[in-house]
Amino acid sequence: LAASLLAGDKRALARAISMVEDRLSGAEQVIAEIFPATGRAAVTGITGPPGVGKSTLIHALIRAYREQGRSVATLCVDPSSSVNHGALLGDRVRMSGFHNDADVYIRSMATRGTLGGLAAAARSALLLMDGAGFDELLVETVGVGQSELTVKGAVDTVVLVLMPGAGDAIQFLKAGVMEIPDVIVVNKRDRGGAESFAAELRRATSVASRGSAPLPAILLTDGIAEEGIAELIDAIADHRTYLRDGALRDARRADALSEAVLDLALEEVRERLLRAIAAGGAEELLETVHARRTHPARAARLLLDHALTPNLVQAGRVP
Amino acid sequence: LAASLLAGDKRALARAISMVEDRLSGAEQVIAEIFPATGRAAVTGITGPPGVGKSTLIHALIRAYREQGRSVATLCVDPSSSVNHGALLGDRVRMSGFHNDADVYIRSMATRGTLGGLAAAARSALLLMDGAGFDELLVETVGVGQSELTVKGAVDTVVLVLMPGAGDAIQFLKAGVMEIPDVIVVNKRDRGGAESFAAELRRATSVASRGSAPLPAILLTDGIAEEGIAELIDAIADHRTYLRDGALRDARRADALSEAVLDLALEEVRERLLRAIAAGGAEELLETVHARRTHPARAARLLLDHALTPNLVQAGRVP
Repeated sequence: LAASLLAGDKRALARAISMVEDRLSGAEQVIAEIFPATGRAAVTGITGPPGVGKSTLIHALIRAYREQGRSVATLCVDPSSSVNHGALLGDRVRMSGFHNDADVYIRSMATRGTLGGLAAAARSALLLMDGAGFDELLVETVGVGQSELTVKGAVDTVVLVLMPGAGDAIQFLKAGVMEIPDVIVVNKRDRGGAESFAAELRRATSVASRGSAPLPAILLTDGIAEEGIAELIDAIADHRTYLRDGALRDARRADALSEAVLDLALEEVRERLLRAIAAGGAEELLETVHARRTHPARAARLLLDHALTPNLVQAGRVP
Repeated sequence: LAASLLAGDKRALARAISMVEDRLSGAEQVIAEIFPATGRAAVTGITGPPGVGKSTLIHALIRAYREQGRSVATLCVDPSSSVNHGALLGDRVRMSGFHNDADVYIRSMATRGTLGGLAAAARSALLLMDGAGFDELLVETVGVGQSELTVKGAVDTVVLVLMPGAGDAIQFLKAGVMEIPDVIVVNKRDRGGAESFAAELRRATSVASRGSAPLPAILLTDGIAEEGIAELIDAIADHRTYLRDGALRDARRADALSEAVLDLALEEVRERLLRAIAAGGAEELLETVHARRTHPARAARLLLDHALTPNLVQAGRVP
């Protein structure tokens, strides 16, 4: 499977991502084999609230990158609880002609379990797409606030998509609840107030600006009419140049990989703890907490000891 | 300190919360001592995007509960990165006369480190307020999406505050990105469109409704004029009756405590891992990951072993 994937076989890629999604044990082996071949793709995150036209914009981006001769894989990460599947990008784009293009791959991924688990699965899927040789990886996430940051570490450039009148987003930027993205797109620019909305965004981002980083490019687009797309691609390219010139890209990616290792370690511990709880070994302990006889921090340490010690004592044989 | 806190001394409470915030080692001892006395307060979460008037509404709620003779402690959890402090509820309410009332306590808490760390600190602060004997605990969080859910487990009743025209929130509810709260307040009802906005919310919540849970009460308020506050207090009381009649409150609280134990255990592991990384023990390992020679999941297991085994082997002496 890993060999077919490395050769660019989309069916192998699809199977490997499904293995990641279903947490099958073989998934890790595939990633282990393809991992040395990764790190080549450019990764762009496209985020924003529902209804601003992210899918249409991604459609236009895919077409534009294809005209440049670049292959594109897209991952849609949907943190919503399994509703709304009809509206997922996959279906819409599949209908629009890319399914015959060997250099376009589109995949959706919904939440299973924790947000942390989803982030880990999304990162693995991106590694697999990278290993399959795609030049451009686009990651679509839904959100305003902090939930969309779950895959942020895996992304070189963050594009926030809004539409005129999305005043909440400006409030979030000003309040620092939302981190400032690398590029902001005001989509649906044919609606009234796009220019003044962009001006408001410019003010909000310069007020909330972060240290030495450049202010985000703010662009107007119309995803349906495919207007402003070349400018968006240029803005993404400019950000890449900025990252490369400052040697920031490799530093960022190294940080992101370290963060991924930490998250995977915590996910592993979380699973061991949940297994220990499910096996009934912690019931009495938790009941003494509910009865307010054992305080939570002490229970946490007892649980850790109970759940981790036996595994680790035998752990000379870490695979 | 614990004894003064249990006797209701607000200065002792303030000191204990500061110890939690600063992660001082003594904090755990205080919580251990007051934990048996907790579980008595009713906890209400007040959440919503910035600018909808949550602070003013909480001000009105405090006054109304005080008229019922109930003592009130309020915790404002601000996930934004240390900006915007001037607008925090504490200042505004301090100016408005409650500071002479021994039965009102107001406290703000900002992010330090991870959201998970903030959630843990907020939960500890609520335990301390509970132990100090306050009848009503109000927790203010900022957000639309999932970030505000970090303290959800510690809350009996979730009140979402919006204002007319906050269309994003309706999109989030429909898309399932935002969980349906127990009560929805349309504040600033004097603005145009409040009634039709409430009707939209009613449609959105009935479409996205969750199993057997009742649909949320949807109320119109004017926080400044203190209109609709009695109705809001009634709606919160109704939700409490619903929880109690279905024996749901204790089950929810038991789940929340188990979740808190799990989170504290993971936070403990996270800290041990970060300490191990800071001590330089993992640099080589992480560099082999950056060089794409060790894949992340294997590195995660190696890191866990490196960081946890020595601690746990000596761990007969869990304090």
